[in-house]
Amino acid sequence: MPTQNQMIVLASRPKGEVTPQNFRLQDATLPDLADGEVLIKNHFLSLDPYMRGRMDESKSYVPPQPLDKVMEGGTAGEVVASKHPGFSAGDKVIGRLGWQLFAISNGTGLTKVDTTQVPLSAYLGCVGMPGVTAWYGLNQIIAPKAGETVVVSAASGAVGSVVGQLAKAKGCRVVGVAGGPDKCRAVVDEYGFDACIDYKAGNLAADLKAATPDGIDGYFENTGGEILDLVLARMNAFGRIAVCGLIASYDGQSIPVNNIRAILISRLTMRGFIISEHPQFWPQALQELGAAVAGGKLRYRETVAQGLASAPEAFMGLLKGRNFGKQLVKLV
Amino acid sequence: MPTQNQMIVLASRPKGEVTPQNFRLQDATLPDLADGEVLIKNHFLSLDPYMRGRMDESKSYVPPQPLDKVMEGGTAGEVVASKHPGFSAGDKVIGRLGWQLFAISNGTGLTKVDTTQVPLSAYLGCVGMPGVTAWYGLNQIIAPKAGETVVVSAASGAVGSVVGQLAKAKGCRVVGVAGGPDKCRAVVDEYGFDACIDYKAGNLAADLKAATPDGIDGYFENTGGEILDLVLARMNAFGRIAVCGLIASYDGQSIPVNNIRAILISRLTMRGFIISEHPQFWPQALQELGAAVAGGKLRYRETVAQGLASAPEAFMGLLKGRNFGKQLVKLV
Repeated sequence: MPTQNQMIVLASRPKGEVTPQNFRLQDATLPDLADGEVLIKNHFLSLDPYMRGRMDESKSYVPPQPLDKVMEGGTAGEVVASKHPGFSAGDKVIGRLGWQLFAISNGTGLTKVDTTQVPLSAYLGCVGMPGVTAWYGLNQIIAPKAGETVVVSAASGAVGSVVGQLAKAKGCRVVGVAGGPDKCRAVVDEYGFDACIDYKAGNLAADLKAATPDGIDGYFENTGGEILDLVLARMNAFGRIAVCGLIASYDGQSIPVNNIRAILISRLTMRGFIISEHPQFWPQALQELGAAVAGGKLRYRETVAQGLASAPEAFMGLLKGRNFGKQLVKLV
Repeated sequence: MPTQNQMIVLASRPKGEVTPQNFRLQDATLPDLADGEVLIKNHFLSLDPYMRGRMDESKSYVPPQPLDKVMEGGTAGEVVASKHPGFSAGDKVIGRLGWQLFAISNGTGLTKVDTTQVPLSAYLGCVGMPGVTAWYGLNQIIAPKAGETVVVSAASGAVGSVVGQLAKAKGCRVVGVAGGPDKCRAVVDEYGFDACIDYKAGNLAADLKAATPDGIDGYFENTGGEILDLVLARMNAFGRIAVCGLIASYDGQSIPVNNIRAILISRLTMRGFIISEHPQFWPQALQELGAAVAGGKLRYRETVAQGLASAPEAFMGLLKGRNFGKQLVKLV
């Protein structure tokens, strides 16, 4: 039985950009397992953009991450000891156990997963929260019809790449926006988007116009900033915008939107959502996404940082778009 | 039978603000009435903010008003001669016959109305397009529950005053935003809003905060500009914003919105709409609004300009907020 644990806690709140000083790696002792409890060894930590919002104290959609407490977040791991009737040693489990090597749980929020057809890490990506986010925003907000044009920002990311593949499967024209030629190439070649615009190439307006000759019917917003304005100007009547993330403003800068008039002129619907608030859709989404991964119909990439100590740097890289696909930290 | 007509045509498109030179008053001869046609004498012209958008050539939700053609718009009048089986001399009719003294119609879009309980002019206001606009945006987009807080901009206007009265009838706390102490007083005293904020008083942020202690659940957007940003910051989770008009940007200035992040943080839904695209809701809305006016439960004000030649000046005043309630031009 392991008795030593290591964890990363929030040491201070960011002033603007996140820095390494906002985190602290510390040792901890694992208590004995009580009846009804289960000890999990984390194999993977999930790093996600929403965590940036939680590091602030200001109003957001979730309570702030407490200072000096283990950084909260999704995890995939294995049960190493159990005094809980629902779990046995060897079970693979998904939970929200945070940035630490081990965790003790009473089973709440812990889900056993089958890794015979879907790799464990995928349950943190396209068969987990990011995948369900993509599924919900596309199906419940954008609800595209075949032949419509759907644009996805952060298209190579854990969410965006799933949005695009699901939209392609519905017969849409799908255009991604991503940073850099490598990501854009993968978005088209690996994920099958019809086109991908490199926002770093400095030609966003003209490139977007060329890639969406029939206008835009649906937009899956992962980034905020300039892209949203340009997309608004090209939206067709009755277009739908699912607002999933606004990374560009996470560090607190105000990024004004100039084309808000398009909401009236094109009778758009713009809706923000947080996937954890729609639990009724998770079973269907996970079933469809798992089957697609198992059947080889849904592709994904992972960027894997090695070791708990690498989590802060990997998280900062995620906020800068340095990852490619789902950002994970591998602990074993 | 009258043979002489007078009309106002669009002489040129505005460059920025509308000026009198954009219009031209001209005489015309009325042709003989053909079989299936009806001759109407217009009693009232309706002046509405949407007309400003139509004066431009740029993309909007309706085709531009053609140059050198009669200004299009809603009218209320009386049949003076008819060779149409559905209409007889003396019938009171609502139509879209434009800025002219007389018009000949084949009956398309012409509706007979009963003026025994509802005055003819009200069919251009709260029992007409503006009223249905208010009804739809409130009931189909904001859909407020009793106890929720609804904010309405341009609250003393033809649309806003109806929105507020309908929301009060649903048990909401209703806060208006209007320009000047006289309008604000009427919004509270005549229309029964719980509070009204004078945006000209220079204290919009603090006044809005004081008037909405429990935050804002629904916002009926008639104006655009600074108010929208302040409202976004005070929206409660799952709030709804109906975007009906953005007068502040009609003259082409770009008015940036800074708080777009609120759409994600508060999981808001923002939807633009054009009431003419939802014909299925008109019968129910008009029935309810007509009954409310006839029963003295829905109050309204009109600003009436006298004579066809006064229409351009009255329209420019409307865009500046100089009207009080529904802006009409009386021709008889």
